[in-house]
Amino acid sequence: MQRILVIHGPNLNLLGQREPDIYGSLTLDDVNSALQSLASELGCRLVCFQSNSEGALVDTIQAAIGCYDGIVINPAAYTHTSVALRDALAAIGIPFVEVHLSNIHRREPFRHHSYLAPLAVGQICGFGLDSYLLGLRALFNHSKSQQG
Amino acid sequence: MQRILVIHGPNLNLLGQREPDIYGSLTLDDVNSALQSLASELGCRLVCFQSNSEGALVDTIQAAIGCYDGIVINPAAYTHTSVALRDALAAIGIPFVEVHLSNIHRREPFRHHSYLAPLAVGQICGFGLDSYLLGLRALFNHSKSQQG
Amino acid sequence: MQRILVIHGPNLNLLGQREPDIYGSLTLDDVNSALQSLASELGCRLVCFQSNSEGALVDTIQAAIGCYDGIVINPAAYTHTSVALRDALAAIGIPFVEVHLSNIHRREPFRHHSYLAPLAVGQICGFGLDSYLLGLRALFNHSKSQQG
Amino acid sequence: MQRILVIHGPNLNLLGQREPDIYGSLTLDDVNSALQSLASELGCRLVCFQSNSEGALVDTIQAAIGCYDGIVINPAAYTHTSVALRDALAAIGIPFVEVHLSNIHRREPFRHHSYLAPLAVGQICGFGLDSYLLGLRALFNHSKSQQG
Amino acid sequence: MQRILVIHGPNLNLLGQREPDIYGSLTLDDVNSALQSLASELGCRLVCFQSNSEGALVDTIQAAIGCYDGIVINPAAYTHTSVALRDALAAIGIPFVEVHLSNIHRREPFRHHSYLAPLAVGQICGFGLDSYLLGLRALFNHSKSQQG
Amino acid sequence: MQRILVIHGPNLNLLGQREPDIYGSLTLDDVNSALQSLASELGCRLVCFQSNSEGALVDTIQAAIGCYDGIVINPAAYTHTSVALRDALAAIGIPFVEVHLSNIHRREPFRHHSYLAPLAVGQICGFGLDSYLLGLRALFNHSKSQQG
Amino acid sequence: MQRILVIHGPNLNLLGQREPDIYGSLTLDDVNSALQSLASELGCRLVCFQSNSEGALVDTIQAAIGCYDGIVINPAAYTHTSVALRDALAAIGIPFVEVHLSNIHRREPFRHHSYLAPLAVGQICGFGLDSYLLGLRALFNHSKSQQG
Amino acid sequence: MQRILVIHGPNLNLLGQREPDIYGSLTLDDVNSALQSLASELGCRLVCFQSNSEGALVDTIQAAIGCYDGIVINPAAYTHTSVALRDALAAIGIPFVEVHLSNIHRREPFRHHSYLAPLAVGQICGFGLDSYLLGLRALFNHSKSQQG
Amino acid sequence: MQRILVIHGPNLNLLGQREPDIYGSLTLDDVNSALQSLASELGCRLVCFQSNSEGALVDTIQAAIGCYDGIVINPAAYTHTSVALRDALAAIGIPFVEVHLSNIHRREPFRHHSYLAPLAVGQICGFGLDSYLLGLRALFNHSKSQQG
Amino acid sequence: MQRILVIHGPNLNLLGQREPDIYGSLTLDDVNSALQSLASELGCRLVCFQSNSEGALVDTIQAAIGCYDGIVINPAAYTHTSVALRDALAAIGIPFVEVHLSNIHRREPFRHHSYLAPLAVGQICGFGLDSYLLGLRALFNHSKSQQG
Amino acid sequence: MQRILVIHGPNLNLLGQREPDIYGSLTLDDVNSALQSLASELGCRLVCFQSNSEGALVDTIQAAIGCYDGIVINPAAYTHTSVALRDALAAIGIPFVEVHLSNIHRREPFRHHSYLAPLAVGQICGFGLDSYLLGLRALFNHSKSQQG
Amino acid sequence: MQRILVIHGPNLNLLGQREPDIYGSLTLDDVNSALQSLASELGCRLVCFQSNSEGALVDTIQAAIGCYDGIVINPAAYTHTSVALRDALAAIGIPFVEVHLSNIHRREPFRHHSYLAPLAVGQICGFGLDSYLLGLRALFNHSKSQQG
Repeated sequence: MQRILVIHGPNLNLLGQREPDIYGSLTLDDVNSALQSLASELGCRLVCFQSNSEGALVDTIQAAIGCYDGIVINPAAYTHTSVALRDALAAIGIPFVEVHLSNIHRREPFRHHSYLAPLAVGQICGFGLDSYLLGLRALFNHSKSQQG
Repeated sequence: MQRILVIHGPNLNLLGQREPDIYGSLTLDDVNSALQSLASELGCRLVCFQSNSEGALVDTIQAAIGCYDGIVINPAAYTHTSVALRDALAAIGIPFVEVHLSNIHRREPFRHHSYLAPLAVGQICGFGLDSYLLGLRALFNHSKSQQG
Repeated sequence: MQRILVIHGPNLNLLGQREPDIYGSLTLDDVNSALQSLASELGCRLVCFQSNSEGALVDTIQAAIGCYDGIVINPAAYTHTSVALRDALAAIGIPFVEVHLSNIHRREPFRHHSYLAPLAVGQICGFGLDSYLLGLRALFNHSKSQQG
Repeated sequence: MQRILVIHGPNLNLLGQREPDIYGSLTLDDVNSALQSLASELGCRLVCFQSNSEGALVDTIQAAIGCYDGIVINPAAYTHTSVALRDALAAIGIPFVEVHLSNIHRREPFRHHSYLAPLAVGQICGFGLDSYLLGLRALFNHSKSQQG
Repeated sequence: MQRILVIHGPNLNLLGQREPDIYGSLTLDDVNSALQSLASELGCRLVCFQSNSEGALVDTIQAAIGCYDGIVINPAAYTHTSVALRDALAAIGIPFVEVHLSNIHRREPFRHHSYLAPLAVGQICGFGLDSYLLGLRALFNHSKSQQG
Repeated sequence: MQRILVIHGPNLNLLGQREPDIYGSLTLDDVNSALQSLASELGCRLVCFQSNSEGALVDTIQAAIGCYDGIVINPAAYTHTSVALRDALAAIGIPFVEVHLSNIHRREPFRHHSYLAPLAVGQICGFGLDSYLLGLRALFNHSKSQQG
Repeated sequence: MQRILVIHGPNLNLLGQREPDIYGSLTLDDVNSALQSLASELGCRLVCFQSNSEGALVDTIQAAIGCYDGIVINPAAYTHTSVALRDALAAIGIPFVEVHLSNIHRREPFRHHSYLAPLAVGQICGFGLDSYLLGLRALFNHSKSQQG
Repeated sequence: MQRILVIHGPNLNLLGQREPDIYGSLTLDDVNSALQSLASELGCRLVCFQSNSEGALVDTIQAAIGCYDGIVINPAAYTHTSVALRDALAAIGIPFVEVHLSNIHRREPFRHHSYLAPLAVGQICGFGLDSYLLGLRALFNHSKSQQG
Repeated sequence: MQRILVIHGPNLNLLGQREPDIYGSLTLDDVNSALQSLASELGCRLVCFQSNSEGALVDTIQAAIGCYDGIVINPAAYTHTSVALRDALAAIGIPFVEVHLSNIHRREPFRHHSYLAPLAVGQICGFGLDSYLLGLRALFNHSKSQQG
Repeated sequence: MQRILVIHGPNLNLLGQREPDIYGSLTLDDVNSALQSLASELGCRLVCFQSNSEGALVDTIQAAIGCYDGIVINPAAYTHTSVALRDALAAIGIPFVEVHLSNIHRREPFRHHSYLAPLAVGQICGFGLDSYLLGLRALFNHSKSQQG
Repeated sequence: MQRILVIHGPNLNLLGQREPDIYGSLTLDDVNSALQSLASELGCRLVCFQSNSEGALVDTIQAAIGCYDGIVINPAAYTHTSVALRDALAAIGIPFVEVHLSNIHRREPFRHHSYLAPLAVGQICGFGLDSYLLGLRALFNHSKSQQG
Repeated sequence: MQRILVIHGPNLNLLGQREPDIYGSLTLDDVNSALQSLASELGCRLVCFQSNSEGALVDTIQAAIGCYDGIVINPAAYTHTSVALRDALAAIGIPFVEVHLSNIHRREPFRHHSYLAPLAVGQICGFGLDSYLLGLRALFNHSKSQQG
């Protein structure tokens, strides 16, 4: 049974309260519930984590060694500024999928670049909650195909 | 019943013969079959089209007006060079999802920029065949939610 | 009697259906009729051509040798990406005027640069249908003054 | 009856004496006469102004409020360096057309950028005296269509 | 009665000990006292917070929802590197003023750009302690005028 | 008793008539009156000057030698284009504060750079009339502290 | 016996008519005849193809699989703009040589970069007809040495 | 007796587990032991600290005032992104040496720039464990020479 | 007998009072006297002009037609910002020499570029008063050699 | 009888010992012998020269005046850094061909630019020894056609 | 017994006479003596070489094949400009360490880039004489570990 | 009595033979004679040196210590590429003047930048032989004023 870690970056705890025209009215709990439902359906175990602290996110990624088979990560603001997250993900060597609620190519130019994407299996953006669900599905299929 | 157009850009007809270390051994027919299966499952109608010609792709996009509710497009090389495709998609105003087989952020810098992505609902890259399937799913859900 | 070729680039066949806030509600037939009226008034012969294909546009430009005394061209998206159109116009050596319906300096930065403009007699943009009519007038006067 | 202000920027008073291979042998008086003729023909009132001073040009633009319905401006060298002219034109909110005698896209790279163009109705360059005449026509038609 | 949160970014706890030629000899307590005096004078309530941790600063900003009417923030080093702070301030939607002790335009080029400034009511730099006091005053007036 | 010169750059004479959504409905006379009131309150003498001409502004700055103890300057458009103003302020060596009505960091990229700011005591932007009042206060305090 | 495909890009059909100061008076037929003569001499079979259409060129390159042992290509304008040609050549994996009639390093800066060159065996430019003949020779020797 | 603080930045706690082809199989404890041995040999006191948190690293640097005579720091990912660490080191004014296990000039371009290096005594990279040992030696000699 | 016009740009009227560490203690009258002496020695007539206004400088340059055989110009701040001065000098076609008191290559990067230098006979910088005297000598010799 | 000078730049004396995966196992003597054979076949006289010193290469190029009718040069590392070689070749005015063993467009970006290529008849790269032989042939034909 | 070559680039023969505030008062002989002492201590043989000529340095590097096991090189000015030195070091394949007396990251931007560093084992800068001694130590340990 | 060294960089030995449209027909001996005449007139001793080798030029500059009071240098091609010459001139600390025969601002962009100019007393370009003579005069006056 696959074990998946879902990591939410900074400010995602405000989801639903925060800029509804960009991010919609779903809360982070709604996202996590929907992810748990899909995880059950796919038959995998899922743990969710959110933090506003780059250091805490690095700690969590490091702690995934031996505990998880894959990571779905929405690095939010740290997508564009954190070499530390990149190094942590490179170090642990667990396959991960990068997801974004909004279409980052429609926003400010500094949001078009991701320090993590070159190391990810793939990247999904623009579909709101569905970005997470598709990311989980993609990761699940990827890991299955690697094992098969 | 949703009607979806799938557009494959230049050189995707070679799929399976072409650089298997990047793109795998699936052929374009395999991709189309898998998409048809998922379309049946979701309950939508699907037509697939491939061309190596920018002009023919523009013609096809224009002809979608009134015939399709959404487009899944893998613009391949034209992602990075075609303002004409961008203008065609902007002109018809049908929601579309941009997909890529490979993780474009891992490849040459000129592949990191897309002329189409800012107009797409979202972008998915890096999951091989799954990029298409997730793209279809994302588009289907998006259109449903717009109607609901 | 001057013979003028009018060339419309990609997506201009959609005129009137396409982004009316930018391009207005005139169709391409309306544009061509208005151009024919002005041509009659000026006393010159006018043929109009539209294509979404870069190659077909290059073919048409090449075929103008010996048949036309001037070209009014709205290269649309190919303005910004086509060295092939530039080379074709340079090769035939027929004077041409570049026109744009919208004010390209108000739009995305990639629309501010034209591969063709440095070879044109001049460039006119921002006046909708009038860009074409003024372009025809400018070309007509230019050719007359060259002959005089 | 439309009232139009024509503004000539720095060094245009030298017209006819100045670099004839680029600008031809017409004097500024010739330009103004030709503009007056066309104004009569169109049925509008026209006043012409030239200055080498950025400040005087700003003063003149400001003074146009309530006196003119449109402006034809050849900002010459200040096209590329004057934010003050841009701000003046933005402040008064009178529609204006930017014209250039020469094809600025054929000249030094610093002449390809205009601070004013994004605020203009449109831009015309490369047709010598005809740039002005076409600009007057374009402005006249534009204003009529706004009123109609 | 307005409630104002003052946020001091990294290394500002060293104030007075740190590079006196740039920042003077005032301590952070001195700054906070002076701010409290002015707050009393203006009739508003003021709370001060300092942290060296980006995550803790994001947490604090988020916690301001419903508790404060405005924020005076000196983001210090995070001005130039933190998209997370920008997103937090955008998310909570409370008006804020950005202040800097030193004139950032006189220092290294990387200090000339601020991720936060485009979202701020305004920015004040170069006046030492007075940057804070003027910032408080500006914020107080701004909020009053919004209510009036 | 401190003597302060207030300098308003190009187009600020239009204040109140000009783009009210950016600059509000205050006139330049309102600004000057408010500044005079604050000057009285602080106990300093204040003279105001406006010009649209870069040369006249340079003349005025030069003439301040020996007559004023400080300058509050809103260089408006010349902020971004005038090395001459920078040199004049550097030459006279009188402390000055740079102010802007709008938040220049929210506007076009060419407005983010100031030729004057590196020589100023500090810079204040975004607070409308209050930018001037805070600038006067800042300059007054700065000069007092230099003398003390 | 080696089988070689020669591909001529856009506007090369005009050879001899087109800008003789840059390209000389040879026609494309002359070029093809000279290539056939050298092919006979070297003992290899040669087919020539020209098109102005990027899509047709991609189709032709793809069709070379299994039919040709090497390609001599003068991509002309598409050298600088076509990722699709690059992808086609990468996909088929047949060794190719890039040739240009003129010395591209002497012309406009945008002609200095080639999307194809990094995948070619080598590049030859500046020798007119001889660029083709040397390219054929180079390709012939390269293929022989690979087999040897 | 000199007191030296050794600071290890983010992800260095994974040393030995992390990308052995780049960083080798030594653990952080091995590094610290080797440093302690050399410290004994040189006759200085050494304390080691590691954290993944930028804020905690800033706190630790600040706390070094009055406790340490020098710092050996491997800022890892924060080398390239942290102005806060730069400001902290500038503020405390204790001489420090920057070290890197790998040769950063051989890796991605964003690793070639260091925010800290311009403030360091010097920089050492590429020698694995030896980078630390040489850094300690360099700092020790530097401090001795400053005192001598 | 050669007639030479000497033009001093903005802020040069402050010479002697202005930043003596960069420009020395000579006044503009001293410069003009020294130039007159050298002119007498060389046997040429010399007129000097200074203005802070770009427009007045353009007027003066234009008025030189038919009155002067050469110009020595220190464009000061306008060196780096004035296309209008460049166009004026191009228009009149009188040979000119550009001089600077200070070594502009030692100062801010924006002072390294001159809009005028490509049109000048030559450029001299860094020698204080001597830059002017050498410039007069250079212009005198240049004109003599042109006539000889 | 044509006289040809072949110039080998720095490090080419190591050929055969040096990075065989890039440059193959041929020695410089092998290259020179093959060139002599082809020269005999073509009926021209050939002298070869190699140096690691930029100055010695400049001396040799200068000494070619009156002694040689053409130059084949592989400038190696100096291709990318030597303006002195460019100036020497420009000064002597003897036609030259630039050759490279490897495909420089496949290597580091700094190898894509050549200071010499814009002055060469043409450039050939990527064919190992054959680059030289083709270069000799190209130069021979070029000179013959110039004389014919 | 290891054999080490020490190479000093241009102007290092002036050491001690040259800019003592940057480089100290040590002469090159002092440096070489200190290196010889350390070499004795480590048990390796050491030869030192200095030249101001790029060509002579290339010659010396080439001659190291078979004679030395490692190189300590201070390329001085050629660090930033010499592709020829880079190619020579790449060609011989002997491990080398790059050292600099001063902290190059504190100096002009053009000194931040090294053509050699990406090929070096590592780089050391900022420690004066100690940069050399640490470099020798680093090279010695590196070679020992490669053999071990 | 002042002792002046004149240094001519690469390719200046060809003067008179080389590109007469840019450099005229004077030989280097003519230049040196004219310089000697002026030296006699000024009462100073002058030695001239030319080399094509960067290393030899560095050697010569170094050898000037204690022998010369000033240097007139035309670094020619090395102006734009040699950090070694810059370092040599910085090291010896003798005042120098940089001269160029042609107006470098009219030529290729890479000739607009000089590595030496920021260290020179001043720079003179565009006056042919007169650039040298004015440079000698400028240096002579500069040295006299330093002594006075």
